[in-house]
Amino acid sequence: MDLDRLVADAREGSPRAVGRLISLVEDGSPRLRELAAALAPHTGRARVVGLTGSPGVGKSTTTSRLVSALRADDRRVGVLAVDPSSPFSGGALLGDRVRMGDHATDPGVFIRSMATRGHLGGLAAATPQALRVLDAAGCDVILVETVGVGQSEVEVVALADTTVVLLAPGMGDSVQAAKAGILEVADVFVVNKADRDGADATVQELQHMISLNRREVDGPSWRPPVVRTVAATGQGIDELVAALDRHRTWAADHDLLAEGPRRRARAEIEAIALADLRARIRDMSGSATLPALAERVVAGELDPYAAADEVVASVRT
Amino acid sequence: MDLDRLVADAREGSPRAVGRLISLVEDGSPRLRELAAALAPHTGRARVVGLTGSPGVGKSTTTSRLVSALRADDRRVGVLAVDPSSPFSGGALLGDRVRMGDHATDPGVFIRSMATRGHLGGLAAATPQALRVLDAAGCDVILVETVGVGQSEVEVVALADTTVVLLAPGMGDSVQAAKAGILEVADVFVVNKADRDGADATVQELQHMISLNRREVDGPSWRPPVVRTVAATGQGIDELVAALDRHRTWAADHDLLAEGPRRRARAEIEAIALADLRARIRDMSGSATLPALAERVVAGELDPYAAADEVVASVRT
Repeated sequence: MDLDRLVADAREGSPRAVGRLISLVEDGSPRLRELAAALAPHTGRARVVGLTGSPGVGKSTTTSRLVSALRADDRRVGVLAVDPSSPFSGGALLGDRVRMGDHATDPGVFIRSMATRGHLGGLAAATPQALRVLDAAGCDVILVETVGVGQSEVEVVALADTTVVLLAPGMGDSVQAAKAGILEVADVFVVNKADRDGADATVQELQHMISLNRREVDGPSWRPPVVRTVAATGQGIDELVAALDRHRTWAADHDLLAEGPRRRARAEIEAIALADLRARIRDMSGSATLPALAERVVAGELDPYAAADEVVASVRT
Repeated sequence: MDLDRLVADAREGSPRAVGRLISLVEDGSPRLRELAAALAPHTGRARVVGLTGSPGVGKSTTTSRLVSALRADDRRVGVLAVDPSSPFSGGALLGDRVRMGDHATDPGVFIRSMATRGHLGGLAAATPQALRVLDAAGCDVILVETVGVGQSEVEVVALADTTVVLLAPGMGDSVQAAKAGILEVADVFVVNKADRDGADATVQELQHMISLNRREVDGPSWRPPVVRTVAATGQGIDELVAALDRHRTWAADHDLLAEGPRRRARAEIEAIALADLRARIRDMSGSATLPALAERVVAGELDPYAAADEVVASVRT
């Protein structure tokens, strides 16, 4: 396979080339180093918007509506639906792509679900890599949609330039969202299904939590707006696009546009380095192997900190 | 503070001593090494049951009912409600402890919510440590309840001897659960709120997915049962206890009782070692610092793999 050819085709907008490149990322191809080098000169333009929230809150429908709104504005759009890999069998299943059907034939839209079963460094490394593919392919905006509300989703959305947290009245209330730690990463809140009972209460709870949770930052501070939407009908989507653009303008005004790319690069480098070190730990032979040390810990002969010291010492020699 | 005294008091069943020891774990005390050494001789008896599922599915109510059922059988019970830390402000908020009020005055029950903002190694290291505290305090069964459905929750429940995955009809359906990767870790499924519309459909979907998802294992294979409960009224809880005991008996019959402790020890050692290595990465000075390398990646001068190589080389010298 000719990587330079694929990268050139992707830059000319070939969906097939983009798809094959993201598959390489997803599968943890040994040629990712080469790919990273080939993409590096062609990236740095796309803006990344992360969307997260509990299952069932309407992320896919909202994403699909956002795509329509951005396309109406003639922006090229990428969609990356990120499934945290199952630790046992690899996670991507059904669902997301179905509702994206409207955009399947639009050449200005790339849509891709991604799992990361084989990737060195997991989502923290794979997501920036896939974003670079879409960036090189000419996307103006890339929407990253994550499944679920756990720590790894928080890590993924923290890679975005602008992060949208979705909630819905009644199901998984804002206390649950707060518990999962997603409130603190939001730049924009969406209360979807805002035509349902309890929408006012959810908006109020959220406003209250935003007051409590104001980030303590040294630099300039952005107060996340709360946008009401009914994604099923498209209501509120224009307001959401406007809120995203306001956040972008605010970042530009405060000289913060490079923060997203920097965060992505730092997270990616650290994730790749740690994955390399973890692989060294798992490949170890001799008395410092994990199973041998674990047996000694289970037998009460060694405590886990002393065992970890042996592991670190072995990695470093 | 006299750690040996605290450990001795915890072993005599002092809830205050247990609470203080778990606070040390939660805060990432520099004395955790010492604590691990002090606890090591007094552990290895408790059985760990993990409970996970989407927000709102009824985990806390089910846990509370399980505590009652186990207490009726005169077993000492520990409850650890694990909140994945928010990366920004630390996560433990409201909720869990309220519904546990019934058991607050029972000396045979220890209940504790835990966040892990400071802990070296995160949940993968902190949870086994807290479990050892409860084990040393004489718990026969420890219920670990996790918030949410992400990767870190999967990692936590994978530390249990028996893992229970809860679903409810209508909210966060089984396809969503499958996406989040929690189906593969289940030893027992619970369809809670089984008196609601759609419960039969949820049970059927689940049975179908269990057939599709049968784990490919070398050793003996356990087919997870599906138990229907209405935790709010207590319906089905005895069946759940029976299913947990059947899984325990099956593990004993197949000589697998040591698997849980081994998995916990391996995960803990690896997590502590990686956290140590990550701290070394973040403390680095000179040209191999993450911010300096990230700038070069953003500028297109270096690809992230080459940057990670520099990081790994620096850690190893």
